[in-house]
Amino acid sequence: MPTLVMKFGGTSVANLDRIARAAKRVSVEVAKGYDVIVIVSAMSGKTNELVGWVDETSPLYDAREYDAVVSSGENVTAGLMALRLQEMGINARSWQGWQVPVQTTSAHASARIEDIPPANIRARFDNGMQVAVVAGFQGVSPEGRITTLGRGGSDTTAVAFAAAFEAERCDIYTDVDGVYTTDPRITSKARKLDKIAFEEMLELASLGAKVLQTRSVELAMRYKVRLRVLSSFEEPSDEAGTLVCDEEEIMEQNAVAGVAYSRDEAKLTLISVADRPGIAAAIFGPLADAGVNVDMIVQNISEEGRTDMTFSCPVDQVLRAQKAMEDAKASESINFHDFVTDDQVAKVSVVGIGMRSHAGVAADMFKALHNEGINIKVITTSEIKISVLIDRKYMELAVQALHDAFDLHKAA
Amino acid sequence: MPTLVMKFGGTSVANLDRIARAAKRVSVEVAKGYDVIVIVSAMSGKTNELVGWVDETSPLYDAREYDAVVSSGENVTAGLMALRLQEMGINARSWQGWQVPVQTTSAHASARIEDIPPANIRARFDNGMQVAVVAGFQGVSPEGRITTLGRGGSDTTAVAFAAAFEAERCDIYTDVDGVYTTDPRITSKARKLDKIAFEEMLELASLGAKVLQTRSVELAMRYKVRLRVLSSFEEPSDEAGTLVCDEEEIMEQNAVAGVAYSRDEAKLTLISVADRPGIAAAIFGPLADAGVNVDMIVQNISEEGRTDMTFSCPVDQVLRAQKAMEDAKASESINFHDFVTDDQVAKVSVVGIGMRSHAGVAADMFKALHNEGINIKVITTSEIKISVLIDRKYMELAVQALHDAFDLHKAA
Repeated sequence: MPTLVMKFGGTSVANLDRIARAAKRVSVEVAKGYDVIVIVSAMSGKTNELVGWVDETSPLYDAREYDAVVSSGENVTAGLMALRLQEMGINARSWQGWQVPVQTTSAHASARIEDIPPANIRARFDNGMQVAVVAGFQGVSPEGRITTLGRGGSDTTAVAFAAAFEAERCDIYTDVDGVYTTDPRITSKARKLDKIAFEEMLELASLGAKVLQTRSVELAMRYKVRLRVLSSFEEPSDEAGTLVCDEEEIMEQNAVAGVAYSRDEAKLTLISVADRPGIAAAIFGPLADAGVNVDMIVQNISEEGRTDMTFSCPVDQVLRAQKAMEDAKASESINFHDFVTDDQVAKVSVVGIGMRSHAGVAADMFKALHNEGINIKVITTSEIKISVLIDRKYMELAVQALHDAFDLHKAA
Repeated sequence: MPTLVMKFGGTSVANLDRIARAAKRVSVEVAKGYDVIVIVSAMSGKTNELVGWVDETSPLYDAREYDAVVSSGENVTAGLMALRLQEMGINARSWQGWQVPVQTTSAHASARIEDIPPANIRARFDNGMQVAVVAGFQGVSPEGRITTLGRGGSDTTAVAFAAAFEAERCDIYTDVDGVYTTDPRITSKARKLDKIAFEEMLELASLGAKVLQTRSVELAMRYKVRLRVLSSFEEPSDEAGTLVCDEEEIMEQNAVAGVAYSRDEAKLTLISVADRPGIAAAIFGPLADAGVNVDMIVQNISEEGRTDMTFSCPVDQVLRAQKAMEDAKASESINFHDFVTDDQVAKVSVVGIGMRSHAGVAADMFKALHNEGINIKVITTSEIKISVLIDRKYMELAVQALHDAFDLHKAA
């Protein structure tokens, strides 16, 4: 029988009523004849409570004990979900990470899944089990210690199970009803996408559309796991949510799939840097060491051995960046005339695999912004994404203008 | 190095402050050079919360899932205790039941420990670990499922570890400071015992002195594990608490070690039962089937083929006992003239292994009660215990009189 993976996040299993509602969803898929693997998070708030206790007990905690403590929330939900399904007449049992086993690295608190041997669960399916309820976010190390995958890790658990069991699909139930062309709070014209390609989802996820953990999308892309994001608070239907899939599954394709933004950016410029081979490393090495997440980088043409170097980072890292650059200047590893900071900028991006075959997307984007009188400060491009830094006060206007310019309110 | 087992119940690990206090106790024993095994319960209230969720989700729950859910509370405490000990510079790690492994039967929710192979923990002690913190109350079945030992099971876990590791002693930290000659709420003359024999503790435990789970005392007696009961809320000392030990360790011995009572008893009498071989089975079989816990049984001399049969049970089981007897009469499996119930009685017992060598304890007991004008309704005796049923209104008076009569306020 085909296998389906269904993942329920913390808000979808926040209390016994929600667990019962999620179980009803599961029963619909069981009735269709799927072998269902359910991945559950802890009840919302539980993991934070456990993390709080660990932090208070031991500020510089042993990550192995952290994992032993915080993994317990998922065990509770898994057992309760199995019981609820049994009450509905469904043959279900719970599995903790070590029972499957979900084999991970020993990198406690941020372990990576190495393998999920399907034999144990498969044998149970063959013996009449209809649903395996698996505690998400956890695994077991080669040393037999409990590991966790880092926050949001249950999405990754779900995708890894879908890959290991060659599932037909991996449904991620969450508190939003899918992936939108942009943030519906910024324009009411935002439209839920029926499908989106893995690459697009990755760009949107890393740009701040917090629907799916980035790692889970990477994993899904690598193993071609079809991911569906949908709300556990809506009536179930086969058309619900957004399918994240291989681009080959997406027949009709707009040039642009969505408009993303990141509000709290800063633009930093080193004026008249003494240019020489290795200067980029001399600048960005110290920034990385100082924990500054540099995003966009632009280097102007070098004239007479000097150049301007502009980069962006989150606005709350500006002070750290300044200190790192001043220290580097003091130690004479770099030399510049001035360091200019603009902490009133935002990033707006258009993302779409259709760009590869549609010429002129960048030109259309710049024109749309120009028509609104919005000045572009920095531009970066990738194969499927164009990002600009603009004054923050124009951010909403820019998102609306771009959404209109690329007709994103209309399906392809 | 000698091994010491220390068990902390739910009130002793109720919050982070109490865990820190318990960890300090542990550090004192570590400093003495012991390899310490700490057994922890769940934070008080946690197990009840989990049981409540299970009951609400599935009233006739699958005990395997019940175990998967309710065992999680101990995992949290074990991890937090290990972290707290690490903060104090002690080399500690937590162990869940399956990691040790604590091998149990498959009787979920009331499993029995079959074996605790000490190799894994022993190897860690040999490699510098000072404290193994073990989640109590849980184990793993031959099928690899999580099991629990039934309520209060952490005491049993502690004794089983002490037996498996041939520990010098098993210290049970609780919210009382030891075992008393009788309930201090009934007489201020009640005295904490320094030592008590296993057999005496068993009689006192089953008579309602709820200091230790009966099973853990049985296990301690079988494997000659020296048990110490003491409060986690007092300053530590080697003399603290009460040592439950083999009678050979107790040099001086009063005839009577303690006076126990059970308040809510009922006395039931079948009048003029037609006597024949097998009549006892015909009466007590149906009572057991009806869930009536029959305690004392007295049969009068049979005259002309008829006899009176008197027994006692908890007062809240009287209606069940009546129905069972009427049904048995209706089905003609037994025949009696009348069924008389007295639900205003209490049981008072004196317990002591010294009785074996002291003659006249029963006579002294009956005389002390007679001196107070207390009428004895039923008497039963065992090798180390004499119990009487009396009117409930005289219960406190009887306990006080017996405590005085046997000089229990004085040490032997």
